[in-house]
Amino acid sequence: MKPVDVAYRLLPGIKWLHGYTAQDAVADLIAGITVGLTVLPQGLAYATLAGLEPQYGLYSAFVGGIVYAFLGSCRQVTIGPTALLALMTSRHTSFGLNSGPAYAILLCLISGFVELLMAVLRLGALVDLISLPVTVGFTSATAVIIGTSQLKGLLGIRGGGGGSGFMKTMESVFTNLDKIRYGDFTLGITAITILLLLRKLKDVKIPGRRILSGTLWVVATGRNALIVLITSVLAYNTCETQESCPFVLTGKVKSGFPDVEVPKFHTTIQAANGTAIDQDYLDMFKELGPSMIILPIIAVLGNVAISKAFSSAGISPTRELVALSLCNVVGSFFSSMPVTGSFSRSAVNHASGVRTPIGGFYTSALVLLALGLLAPYFQYIPKAALSAVIISAVIFMIEFEVIKPLWRCSRRELLPGAITFVISLAIGVELGLLLGVGVDVAYLVYRAARPALTVSKLRTTNGTDYILMRPIHSSLYFPAIEWVRTGISKAVAMHGTAPVVLDCSNMHELDFTAARGMGALNKELASSFVPFFLLKASKEICVILKESTNSDFHTIETPDDLEYILDNTASIDDHRLQVTIPLINAQNKVNGGDAMTLDGSGGGGGGHL
Amino acid sequence: MKPVDVAYRLLPGIKWLHGYTAQDAVADLIAGITVGLTVLPQGLAYATLAGLEPQYGLYSAFVGGIVYAFLGSCRQVTIGPTALLALMTSRHTSFGLNSGPAYAILLCLISGFVELLMAVLRLGALVDLISLPVTVGFTSATAVIIGTSQLKGLLGIRGGGGGSGFMKTMESVFTNLDKIRYGDFTLGITAITILLLLRKLKDVKIPGRRILSGTLWVVATGRNALIVLITSVLAYNTCETQESCPFVLTGKVKSGFPDVEVPKFHTTIQAANGTAIDQDYLDMFKELGPSMIILPIIAVLGNVAISKAFSSAGISPTRELVALSLCNVVGSFFSSMPVTGSFSRSAVNHASGVRTPIGGFYTSALVLLALGLLAPYFQYIPKAALSAVIISAVIFMIEFEVIKPLWRCSRRELLPGAITFVISLAIGVELGLLLGVGVDVAYLVYRAARPALTVSKLRTTNGTDYILMRPIHSSLYFPAIEWVRTGISKAVAMHGTAPVVLDCSNMHELDFTAARGMGALNKELASSFVPFFLLKASKEICVILKESTNSDFHTIETPDDLEYILDNTASIDDHRLQVTIPLINAQNKVNGGDAMTLDGSGGGGGGHL
Repeated sequence: MKPVDVAYRLLPGIKWLHGYTAQDAVADLIAGITVGLTVLPQGLAYATLAGLEPQYGLYSAFVGGIVYAFLGSCRQVTIGPTALLALMTSRHTSFGLNSGPAYAILLCLISGFVELLMAVLRLGALVDLISLPVTVGFTSATAVIIGTSQLKGLLGIRGGGGGSGFMKTMESVFTNLDKIRYGDFTLGITAITILLLLRKLKDVKIPGRRILSGTLWVVATGRNALIVLITSVLAYNTCETQESCPFVLTGKVKSGFPDVEVPKFHTTIQAANGTAIDQDYLDMFKELGPSMIILPIIAVLGNVAISKAFSSAGISPTRELVALSLCNVVGSFFSSMPVTGSFSRSAVNHASGVRTPIGGFYTSALVLLALGLLAPYFQYIPKAALSAVIISAVIFMIEFEVIKPLWRCSRRELLPGAITFVISLAIGVELGLLLGVGVDVAYLVYRAARPALTVSKLRTTNGTDYILMRPIHSSLYFPAIEWVRTGISKAVAMHGTAPVVLDCSNMHELDFTAARGMGALNKELASSFVPFFLLKASKEICVILKESTNSDFHTIETPDDLEYILDNTASIDDHRLQVTIPLINAQNKVNGGDAMTLDGSGGGGGGHL
Repeated sequence: MKPVDVAYRLLPGIKWLHGYTAQDAVADLIAGITVGLTVLPQGLAYATLAGLEPQYGLYSAFVGGIVYAFLGSCRQVTIGPTALLALMTSRHTSFGLNSGPAYAILLCLISGFVELLMAVLRLGALVDLISLPVTVGFTSATAVIIGTSQLKGLLGIRGGGGGSGFMKTMESVFTNLDKIRYGDFTLGITAITILLLLRKLKDVKIPGRRILSGTLWVVATGRNALIVLITSVLAYNTCETQESCPFVLTGKVKSGFPDVEVPKFHTTIQAANGTAIDQDYLDMFKELGPSMIILPIIAVLGNVAISKAFSSAGISPTRELVALSLCNVVGSFFSSMPVTGSFSRSAVNHASGVRTPIGGFYTSALVLLALGLLAPYFQYIPKAALSAVIISAVIFMIEFEVIKPLWRCSRRELLPGAITFVISLAIGVELGLLLGVGVDVAYLVYRAARPALTVSKLRTTNGTDYILMRPIHSSLYFPAIEWVRTGISKAVAMHGTAPVVLDCSNMHELDFTAARGMGALNKELASSFVPFFLLKASKEICVILKESTNSDFHTIETPDDLEYILDNTASIDDHRLQVTIPLINAQNKVNGGDAMTLDGSGGGGGGHL
């Protein structure tokens, strides 16, 4: 392996540098800055939601971009603070005496290590459990939640209670409708309209006018940054003071680089009576409790859904996990709260035409710049403009077009999608996603438990009637065996005591429970004097039946063989007595080598517990 | 339907009366009384564990037997108080002012209704999810827990802290080893030895001496009752007072029939400051909270595992559910706490040779007799004798013999069994059972996610090389599609750009996610100029592919058809250009009617999110 290959393997992000053109760089720069302009107010807001001071949101926003640029594989993903993780973090930040940041930063470190553990255990393949309908339901619900979360900014409503959920936000908006500020509203609606029009511009090709076409593309792609710039200039020129301003502005951003230090494993909290209580690492672990497991799982599920939504193939879940893990571990040294991929910013990133994860580098640079130098200038960004940017990005993530083909060809798959969507909106995205996956998994289990089974009464070429049972499934496992046994009992009750032939040609696997059940069935049929044959049973199936039961099974290669066996027992009465005694290997006359007859270790017992 | 059939259908228990012989009656009587003698001290103990007065255990012990005799279908199952449910009930009985019974009885009623709901929703089929290894692990662990719970009785250790779990019991036994009473210990060990010897006697057949053989069988079957009787007489003659007695005795049982009344939906609890607080039904529901769901689920899981353990077939889970449900609903009118099948008493019942659920009737009669009249006499039963009865019953429920065949033919199935066993002992049987089922279900999902897939490079009769991919699974669902796509990409990378043929002859089902993935794969291969064919795709698969993707797939009936298609395109270059344009329906020359070619609604799009 060449050194460059090793480098690519260890730092997959740098493969983007190979053949990185000026055009790529411009696209990434525009997208990176647009995302940066989105992450600044989001970071401030989410930090507040997490119960921390605003600057912690910015501290959380810049490490992810840099680490992911080196390690990530999905160009649209932007790692940083999210509303959901902020909410989950907020549970542990209300103990006073500046213990909040200590808990948030420790949780960030632990989340990183748990994610690393998931990567090591190859749990990244859990992604495969998220079906397309669930992805669509999750994406659409997230888009609706993000969209409504921006309504207040768009309408200029200030205060009136926060809440990150769909229900809470809607409630808050409707109870504060009288507080709509028409300056913000006008700006927001205008911005959305312009953004949607500019978006259309992207695909406009004017034949023979390459420079004009190119300019249109740049304007269309940079539309988010453009709107933010124009509205900021507008606000700067209109607003003498915040009070006289027709728009709600982002407000001051506290400047300065975070301390670089090892996350603290001890802190001090305030007791109810006001005294300070020291907390060592055990106390802190105890306080964080299940969050140390649940938060990283939600982070990974969210991140994975994003990378799956934006790129149809070629994403290695394990590599994504390692990238996310290191974003958190490294971030915790820069006072970051837990981070993951943000759907809204990834959508902005995608809409801004990002080409490589290097875009995150520019975002980080912008955040650092903001922290260090630009903070005074960002205060003029109208919140309504940022809301417009986000809303016009996410409305295209709401998917209706998948419903029609699902309705036409696989209606039952609408259920997991609908459950994911509804529960995500009504309760929370994490529960919605889990329930959607749960419904899908339940269906997989149901298919294994209730395989298609055909029962037919047939006649051999020599005129002997027999009952043919054919499970159309590649395996017979524990949840199905009792059902198959019941089916065979019913068939016998209906068709009389004709020989029963179980067609095993589709069956490639049998587990112990099913094998024991087959043994019990064999004995049951023998006691009712019903001959029972396995048709075309594979060697693997014969072996497991032999090993796990004391029953003797008769295998045949064609239905006509059963007459050969029946005829070679002197009379039907003799046959009845002999059903548990190995008969002639009928299939040996059909083919030589591979065929086998099972002879158990003598009668009795078997299948009892 | 004849009236008698209707009666059988509504009260399945009474079918046992049909052909009920004197011998059956004797067997049931012996078993019923033996179980009764077991349930008396257990009932007293479990009621105390639940935080109630002892007589509530007996109130809980007699209704189940009667109701189950009419409705149940598994002769060994005995419904009554159990340690696990008593523990779960105890959470709600410590609020003082006699609110304990009110909560326990209400919980019993609600559990019954929740179980009825499970029956209506056909959730009884969840039983099928408990595989044999898990059943064995659960049974064995329960046997060990029950056995160790009797150690203190056997050793005559009094007091020293209770605890129903394996760990707690062992800890309590070892910290109290100095308190062993050698009278009890001797009695217990002797009783166990005699019981095990008498058990062997059951199978002794003396040729020609039917009466002697019969007597031996009666003694062997009635051994539990016999031991209890003999040791009680011994204790009655030895013990003047409890203090001078070498054995710990059961002690006095409070006599009298319970009040028959509708469960109360209100009660009064004691506040911390001693004042009484009225609780209406809402307060009570709030207090019971999740127990109203979890307790019935645990009850059903336990009951189902028992009926599955003791009878290999013919048990209708729904009917069992209804029976259990009505035991609780009716029981709650007789001051019963929540009840379910007891593994230890079912084992005693089984070991005592019970023949029909009518045995439960005799048990109930004995419990009523005890409550009404016999209470003074039962105080002489040595606890060590009862412990011996239980221990010698449950040790045969610990199964080692299943390990060998599992090791030989299906090693991976040892895992769910081992997890169930270990977790049941270390933490609790409910968690053990759930985790065991979880591991089994995870394997089912794994099989659906990673179907067996063979890849081979073959040559048609005319000499064209092609890559044949053959998934050996009856379905291709969402968790597998990315993996199959990766497999095909790898095969193409390895074998060059030979045509890829996907053998769909084993594949009967495809879901939307998989269909979309196939569409994306089709486009991917087309963009790499690799012709892609579906071999023997069923009509259903063609329909879902057509409906859910915009891709055009080429279907063939034999590999040789692919040449016909390739030859009928003027040149390979033309072919490359035309891969997304519907080609000649090659399979029409093979067979007429059923074959179909998919022609999507034109190129572009598809598979994007």
